[in-house]
Amino acid sequence: MSDPQPGSGTFLTFEGIDGSGKSTQASLLADRLRANGRDVVLTREPGGSTGAEEIRRLVLEGDPDRWSAETEILLFTAARRDHMERTILPALAAGKVVICDRFADSTRMYQGLSRGDLRGLVDALHDLMIGREPDITVLIDMDPEIGLQRALARQGSEERFEDFGPELQQQMRAGFLALAHDFADRFRVIDGNRPVEAVADDVFAIAAPALT
Amino acid sequence: MSDPQPGSGTFLTFEGIDGSGKSTQASLLADRLRANGRDVVLTREPGGSTGAEEIRRLVLEGDPDRWSAETEILLFTAARRDHMERTILPALAAGKVVICDRFADSTRMYQGLSRGDLRGLVDALHDLMIGREPDITVLIDMDPEIGLQRALARQGSEERFEDFGPELQQQMRAGFLALAHDFADRFRVIDGNRPVEAVADDVFAIAAPALT
Repeated sequence: MSDPQPGSGTFLTFEGIDGSGKSTQASLLADRLRANGRDVVLTREPGGSTGAEEIRRLVLEGDPDRWSAETEILLFTAARRDHMERTILPALAAGKVVICDRFADSTRMYQGLSRGDLRGLVDALHDLMIGREPDITVLIDMDPEIGLQRALARQGSEERFEDFGPELQQQMRAGFLALAHDFADRFRVIDGNRPVEAVADDVFAIAAPALT
Repeated sequence: MSDPQPGSGTFLTFEGIDGSGKSTQASLLADRLRANGRDVVLTREPGGSTGAEEIRRLVLEGDPDRWSAETEILLFTAARRDHMERTILPALAAGKVVICDRFADSTRMYQGLSRGDLRGLVDALHDLMIGREPDITVLIDMDPEIGLQRALARQGSEERFEDFGPELQQQMRAGFLALAHDFADRFRVIDGNRPVEAVADDVFAIAAPALT
């Protein structure tokens, strides 16, 4: 970004395979921090700002083959840039806590999975156009079989990402764990194969001390 | 591009300020080459493929301030990537002549004009995601006063680029001439302050020997 200063707020992201419960946990953490008097912005990707939501529709609606992987990465990077400029950075500058359901790590994982040589492209575009990484990334680690059952049970899901089978879920889990290893300084891995409340307690225990 | 091989066709682009007659000249050259038995694809930017036209609408319609310059450059690069993959490279691979009304030089000129530090960003994204330059770029050089009068006389123009005054037209002309200097190997500058037919003869004289 042209203004890479982190601001005074805290930027937390949630990652995990489909059905891992990351959206539920992001929302529970937002509630709990608000109950503790924190000013929280809960957002998600792809999307999270007016322009980014329009780009999200352009990418995710219609024929899945309408965009090449490279064009899709450019569109996701454009959406993320808009999301950073309009939603995330202003909130951080105002001292708020920003909780984002999926961020750049999802792009790294999904695109790297679809074709190995794309990971370098994703990173190069991120460095050039986004720059900022989250302060903390919570990875809800999950048995892929259970995650898949949860994801498939969900009604009305419109995401292409979720049209996947067990083997791919396994590869996605491995991809996220590899990212947790690569970015060990900001990743925190939580066992998601437990009751929602137990996972939420762990998430809060991780997030609370990090808040500035 | 992942496949930067030039193919066996010839890639010609037209650049120039608004009202310089570049679209007319691109069309006249296409007609003349076809009359000579050439297989010609006449295209334009932003747009030129189904996906790129959708991105064009996303960028150019609505509030001009809805996108930052950086997001706009990402969206234009996504559109250009799609245009390359779906329209330009397949035609070149099939041995055709591709004539494109505006290409990356327009992005370099317009974005560089709006903020000096953006030129490096445009070039970095071009190198990373597009790679290929035209074989020949015809710059129709034009007195800005005349160009502006022509542009304003045109009915139904929807392009934001044309909501400009004389001083800006002058800066645009200088910007294109600077690009012609920077990329002297592929740029050919033609005096556009003459009758359409005289300009068309010059354009043909430049293009014909370059066709493979």
